[in-house]
Amino acid sequence: MLSKRLVKCARLQIVIHGGRPIVGASCRVATGAVQAEGSVGKITEPMRGSLKGLIDTQAPRGTRDFPPEELRLRNWLFGEFATVSRLFGFEQWDAPVLESEELFVRKAGEEITDQLYNFEDKGQRKMALRPELTPSLARLVLQRQKTLPLPAKWWAIGQCWRYERMTRGRRREHYQWNMDIIGVAGVEAEAELLAAITLFFERVGLSSKDVGIKVSSRKVLQSVLEQYNLPSDLFAKVCIIVDKIEKLPREQIEKELDAIGVPTETVQGVLSAMSIRSLEELEKLLGPNSEAVSDLKHLFNLASGYGYSDWLVFDPSVVRGLAYYTGTVFEGFDREGKLRAICGGGRYDRLLGTFGGDDLPCTGFGFGDAVIVELLKDKGILPEPKQKVDDLVLAMDESLRPQASGIASKLRKSGRSVELVLENKKMKWAFKHAEKCHADRLVLVGAEEWSRGCVSVKDLLKREQLEVPVNDL
Amino acid sequence: MLSKRLVKCARLQIVIHGGRPIVGASCRVATGAVQAEGSVGKITEPMRGSLKGLIDTQAPRGTRDFPPEELRLRNWLFGEFATVSRLFGFEQWDAPVLESEELFVRKAGEEITDQLYNFEDKGQRKMALRPELTPSLARLVLQRQKTLPLPAKWWAIGQCWRYERMTRGRRREHYQWNMDIIGVAGVEAEAELLAAITLFFERVGLSSKDVGIKVSSRKVLQSVLEQYNLPSDLFAKVCIIVDKIEKLPREQIEKELDAIGVPTETVQGVLSAMSIRSLEELEKLLGPNSEAVSDLKHLFNLASGYGYSDWLVFDPSVVRGLAYYTGTVFEGFDREGKLRAICGGGRYDRLLGTFGGDDLPCTGFGFGDAVIVELLKDKGILPEPKQKVDDLVLAMDESLRPQASGIASKLRKSGRSVELVLENKKMKWAFKHAEKCHADRLVLVGAEEWSRGCVSVKDLLKREQLEVPVNDL
Repeated sequence: MLSKRLVKCARLQIVIHGGRPIVGASCRVATGAVQAEGSVGKITEPMRGSLKGLIDTQAPRGTRDFPPEELRLRNWLFGEFATVSRLFGFEQWDAPVLESEELFVRKAGEEITDQLYNFEDKGQRKMALRPELTPSLARLVLQRQKTLPLPAKWWAIGQCWRYERMTRGRRREHYQWNMDIIGVAGVEAEAELLAAITLFFERVGLSSKDVGIKVSSRKVLQSVLEQYNLPSDLFAKVCIIVDKIEKLPREQIEKELDAIGVPTETVQGVLSAMSIRSLEELEKLLGPNSEAVSDLKHLFNLASGYGYSDWLVFDPSVVRGLAYYTGTVFEGFDREGKLRAICGGGRYDRLLGTFGGDDLPCTGFGFGDAVIVELLKDKGILPEPKQKVDDLVLAMDESLRPQASGIASKLRKSGRSVELVLENKKMKWAFKHAEKCHADRLVLVGAEEWSRGCVSVKDLLKREQLEVPVNDL
Repeated sequence: MLSKRLVKCARLQIVIHGGRPIVGASCRVATGAVQAEGSVGKITEPMRGSLKGLIDTQAPRGTRDFPPEELRLRNWLFGEFATVSRLFGFEQWDAPVLESEELFVRKAGEEITDQLYNFEDKGQRKMALRPELTPSLARLVLQRQKTLPLPAKWWAIGQCWRYERMTRGRRREHYQWNMDIIGVAGVEAEAELLAAITLFFERVGLSSKDVGIKVSSRKVLQSVLEQYNLPSDLFAKVCIIVDKIEKLPREQIEKELDAIGVPTETVQGVLSAMSIRSLEELEKLLGPNSEAVSDLKHLFNLASGYGYSDWLVFDPSVVRGLAYYTGTVFEGFDREGKLRAICGGGRYDRLLGTFGGDDLPCTGFGFGDAVIVELLKDKGILPEPKQKVDDLVLAMDESLRPQASGIASKLRKSGRSVELVLENKKMKWAFKHAEKCHADRLVLVGAEEWSRGCVSVKDLLKREQLEVPVNDL
């Protein structure tokens, strides 16, 4: 029952935050989700607190428990993240889920910093549960500024948190897979990251017909704004607004651009540039010497070398919602357009500088654990990993329990996983239980066989039973 | 340099808290550690904060970063925890690191609840970073009180937190491995858990000469107190004091027992009983019908069936510092007596009841990630896992980068891990780099070979070079 409830929540939640905030959900889906979740919240609310003296057994609002069946799925997903990262030769790292608040405070109007899960500890220090992994990565890189061998290719999986004052039953935590390359200035880094993402998609059974990756460069928008002589300090603000192009009606976007002081003519120019969908057209607009154009051309050329061009879509309206991106940006999306972004990332060459260190070229992506599971479920290809042991060992008689323990011990030392029955149970139960944990064999320790130095081994796959000397087990 | 600093901290820290608080450190070691750490704290303090505008790059006070070399070690350790858990047929679970404070509030004078890392969230809810995993486990079990198939055998690895107002540079987080059996009333459960712990020790290279496990039952102390007609409500308080027998001088223990109202005669009787070291002696004291004695005899009998008797030591002064234990208690220790407890656990048959649910027989243990690493390091058997890739792929010419990308892609899809060089690098660098990441092969994509549909493959183990057709890679 619990698992059903969790699954239901997982389907309804919207997680807009994350290492790189996940945007681009259509209005319809987002609104529907919020309403549905609001009602889930209302229904469960009266069940919280002390009913008949029972503590609140639900996980804290907006968080998930992982009972075994959920954890098996999480392990499968994280295992795929890990395998892909290792196939690319990346090294894993981690940092505390709790960081100083200052690491995440940016004045860019990003949702991710507005919704920081921060608090004061007992020593009056301002702390935060990390909303994303990138600032912690930057901190680790800055620790070893002079000594870190470059390029460094690092990956991580970490739980990320957010807090909204207006709680709408939305999730407050998610896990995020990150891969980052530190020290490579060329788009070879972006191409390598996109290769990892597409390999992951392929491994979990998705094709370029199911999923695409929108790619652009912030330099495109920057060049357009330069053409209109817009002051460069408006760039970050324009990015935050352009990032909402798919979510809001055009008039709303125009209004917001107007509100920060973008002249009407520029607004129209920007919006028209954002609707370009080919590099040829872009080259016409920005000219043959545009860095944005040559970067993107080189990136698409590398993609074709890797063999994943069919996954990529050039879309200059993709700018991503984080203030620190400086160049290429990308965003994974489902081709049916039903879900929020699956993953997102890009180049952030000036993040280390904003932390007071020397800048280094950096690229990375964040890939949440929520949308991908939704997508795989929708496609009917989400695996359902089962509990699995090799042997189930049962003492046929209470007095033989020490002997059965010895058998279990011997099998385990030989590398077999053993479910040892610790209580008096009937054969019928043992068979049923062996089925439940997908045991290959049932090993029965009975008095008669034991007197001959043997045990009974029922092969549950071949459906045959043998008497086996203990030494041959 | 960072890694050295971290290692130093790891050696000096004392982590008394944890899933089951780790006690039994000698005064000398504990005091030494606190002083040493105090000074480490003082030295690093001025380096924190904004030096030349650089953010504080250290992890928050009392927490650890895991750069790749540290994470490889953690992965090795967690991998062993996971392997043993799976060999025993246990199922993994997890819960949020953040829980409602109420889950951990107990009025027992335990260090673990006194040092709770709690705070108020923005919605004025009292939250806590979990100090241990067991209450979350109980919460999950209570969620499915009527439906959970029993016995349930669950394991987890989770980060646990504590906060002391008096910060002495001590660690505020550690990871803990837990295995729990829910629904088995007999000591078969304890015996199975001890089998897992000893198998873990064996797998990491420790023998029963290095490490022992003290075993007792709280029923021993309970029976002794009953012999003296001590009111049963004093039991929990006496446990907390007896738990300190190895850490404090005898006079101090006597004083504390006196202070809570234990008569002098009883104090002497209790301390004398706590010095018993054999089950025969215990049977003389408690009589032949003592449940404590028969439980322990059965447990030692099972241990001998499993084959791990030589690891066990009967010691009635072991009561463990957590209020919820009701029966068997145990504690792993290094035979040289240099370190704090390595792990600890026991039976807690009434925890679910204290949460307002129906009681179920439960047993479990907590095994921290700190002391075991210290011990393995002291013994010189701590592994140093290396970075490892199968192939290093290098384009000999910038224009061949798309081709090199294709080769990397092909190798990765075949399951080989590939470090792809993303920049212009010399052969010398490539060889050095291949050594650093322990590559087996260096795959060179050069114009000449490529024109023949081939690449150069240098086998770095056999020290030979071959020209290989791309299709045969």
